[in-house]
Amino acid sequence: MAEQMVAKIVLDKKREGRALGSAEIRDFISGFTHGEIPDYQMSALAMAICCKGMTERETADLTDAMMRSGAYLSWDDLPVPTADKHSTGGVGDKLSLVIQPLAAACGVAVPSLTGRGLGLTGGTADKLETIPGYSCSLAIDDFRRVVTNVGVSMAVQTDEICPADKKLYALRDVTGTVASIPLITASILSKKLAEGAGTLVFDVKCGKGAFMKTPDEAKALANSLVAGAKAAGRRAAALVTRMDAPLGRCIGNANEVAEAIEMLECRSEGAELRSASLEVSVELAALMVSLARGIGLDEARNECNEKLADGSALAKFRAMVEAHGGDLGRFAALRRKPTFKFAIQAMRSGYIGAIDAEKVARTALLLGAGREKAGDRIDPLAGVTLTVGVGDRITTGQQLATLERSADPDGLESCAAQLLAAFAITSERPDTESLIMERIN
Amino acid sequence: MAEQMVAKIVLDKKREGRALGSAEIRDFISGFTHGEIPDYQMSALAMAICCKGMTERETADLTDAMMRSGAYLSWDDLPVPTADKHSTGGVGDKLSLVIQPLAAACGVAVPSLTGRGLGLTGGTADKLETIPGYSCSLAIDDFRRVVTNVGVSMAVQTDEICPADKKLYALRDVTGTVASIPLITASILSKKLAEGAGTLVFDVKCGKGAFMKTPDEAKALANSLVAGAKAAGRRAAALVTRMDAPLGRCIGNANEVAEAIEMLECRSEGAELRSASLEVSVELAALMVSLARGIGLDEARNECNEKLADGSALAKFRAMVEAHGGDLGRFAALRRKPTFKFAIQAMRSGYIGAIDAEKVARTALLLGAGREKAGDRIDPLAGVTLTVGVGDRITTGQQLATLERSADPDGLESCAAQLLAAFAITSERPDTESLIMERIN
Repeated sequence: MAEQMVAKIVLDKKREGRALGSAEIRDFISGFTHGEIPDYQMSALAMAICCKGMTERETADLTDAMMRSGAYLSWDDLPVPTADKHSTGGVGDKLSLVIQPLAAACGVAVPSLTGRGLGLTGGTADKLETIPGYSCSLAIDDFRRVVTNVGVSMAVQTDEICPADKKLYALRDVTGTVASIPLITASILSKKLAEGAGTLVFDVKCGKGAFMKTPDEAKALANSLVAGAKAAGRRAAALVTRMDAPLGRCIGNANEVAEAIEMLECRSEGAELRSASLEVSVELAALMVSLARGIGLDEARNECNEKLADGSALAKFRAMVEAHGGDLGRFAALRRKPTFKFAIQAMRSGYIGAIDAEKVARTALLLGAGREKAGDRIDPLAGVTLTVGVGDRITTGQQLATLERSADPDGLESCAAQLLAAFAITSERPDTESLIMERIN
Repeated sequence: MAEQMVAKIVLDKKREGRALGSAEIRDFISGFTHGEIPDYQMSALAMAICCKGMTERETADLTDAMMRSGAYLSWDDLPVPTADKHSTGGVGDKLSLVIQPLAAACGVAVPSLTGRGLGLTGGTADKLETIPGYSCSLAIDDFRRVVTNVGVSMAVQTDEICPADKKLYALRDVTGTVASIPLITASILSKKLAEGAGTLVFDVKCGKGAFMKTPDEAKALANSLVAGAKAAGRRAAALVTRMDAPLGRCIGNANEVAEAIEMLECRSEGAELRSASLEVSVELAALMVSLARGIGLDEARNECNEKLADGSALAKFRAMVEAHGGDLGRFAALRRKPTFKFAIQAMRSGYIGAIDAEKVARTALLLGAGREKAGDRIDPLAGVTLTVGVGDRITTGQQLATLERSADPDGLESCAAQLLAAFAITSERPDTESLIMERIN
């Protein structure tokens, strides 16, 4: 009954474009989480928020209410500062596998809870679990132990974390209420706040292969995430990064892990394709280290480059894999297993003008590297490996990319035809720009 | 599955403020009516419509889709034109009981389906059913027979009429999505269109005792109703009428029927209080007659006045009551039954500056004349009778009104105290204005 009074007031206020009170937001979300406020009232509020927006204060209250819907962690007992990085999701985005161990190698503990992939968005947990034995499903106590002992753990959120977000996201997905900066902010941030890290760094992707298509939208989300994290008493910063072409060479799961390991090993294969990804990785890790330890960004960047060069970051990654039960020897063996492959070649000479990230992602999804719906099984070895990058000079017949999967050669050709359409070949060399579009502190 | 595709497209479009296609609206409403589109998607769309509006064409499509969700009538076989009047609901609004028989007396058949009262809004069906024997619950065939034989029938909508509206209204009521001109238009108009009358006249109430509080809102609704009815191929017009003070002397159920009979009898008791109501009644009936028969408004108005004066309108009312099984002799006996009464007096001399319709309605509700929730029983004899009207000169101790109910003398005094607060007594005579604020053709 009390929930119904709150629901009525809240819905009227937001429909009229007025700001909701902190207690109103808290009671509505609590009522929704406990089933006292039904889905049809929550979806009406979500739509009103899409249409009328929320102030920074309301967004912070919504985030807080969602965080408090479940368990949340504190790391006050650790002797080192904590930080985490969150990416809004890009094609070929394996940077977390580099950044989190790198920050840990610089003396920052990294408690990182990630999601599984859905649709075009690959999930870090799916990638890590292609390492035989690696389990992302840790109980909270085990997660706490790995972070404490190793300095970094990458696991999936348990059901204890932010149940309100899980319930609300499922509803937003079917009620046309995904596209809202305050709702996206609260969804991302409530889970990150629940992890308990003192510093949060956001990589907001922008472009064809990202949810945020324009720089304005991406910047608005980045600002909202940083403001929300600060309102919750955390240190925070964000980069807006370009996501028109895939990030790095590999798009899939096991191949992305392998590429991340190459980046941590500072190996030279595909160095040009990787340099831009590495620049972003170092910048994001440096932001984490700089904010968490209270040192200058230049000093943090230098330290990150040292820890990559001296193998400390790779050692942290290996230690984390081992702590999660993973076996990198068996991973290397898995990568040598025979698969069905198909290579595509350039039909004309020129320059690689663009590689459409969304089309590449759709091909990878079709090959079996992703999930169309929650619960689908993925093929760990399925994916695309680019042989060329934007700006490269190519000649007719030169290999552009390979497609790969574990089983079923049928349909590989049609996937290949689709992938070919992702490449724009131009007569002029395109301007290539830094992936980093903006930094928000 | 097809419904879910439609739902996704429709919700995204309306959230972005774009106009929906006719087929999209039809499929969404049909899916909702048949349970293929769940409440949480319908409520999200209702909120998006509240926030982003609808064009006239979309509103017409929504109305049509809702009308077609159930049974709808046609009167093409009648030798006379058909018309109905709908009021958006006012305090003491018994005008339908005068207008519908009056229009029928002028040779227009009046198929009128009304609702039961809820909250502060009295229902015409509840009023009529205080006449012993009168049944508003006619099967569609019986309703058709009474309209054909008598020329006028006032009954309640059966569940066969506009099931989509019933389902949607229940949802809007609990999701803060009542306040929307397109949704209100579709709700009112779909039911009126289903009645099948060729002419529709709307009495849009405006003021303290009405849902529309400002002239701008009331005018917008009136315009929307008229445009929607015309888009559906009907003749239509509307009056915006003042609803700050109650309409006429009586607020209740049996007392309102008695007052309506007095108006039809052209009796002189309370003539000053009644003249304004009578002016509105004649104007609305004249609009029905003028549009339905294609004659000038002045000619129609003259004919209405004649049919009142010569007793034809009263005869139509009596014939309708008889056809519905009602007994006016037993009604007169009911009205003589002893009740608990309480009179309130003026505490000072002056003029009646205002009588707050909403406060009077709350008093009547408290006395038992209305329903707080659907299904509540009403006391047919409960109500308020005003002894004075706005602008009247009064002296200390003069009676202002009486309160009445069938049982339970306890609490009458507190109702009386509340009613007293509805009267504003001023030193200067207030300006009294015509109830008719605007006519929309």
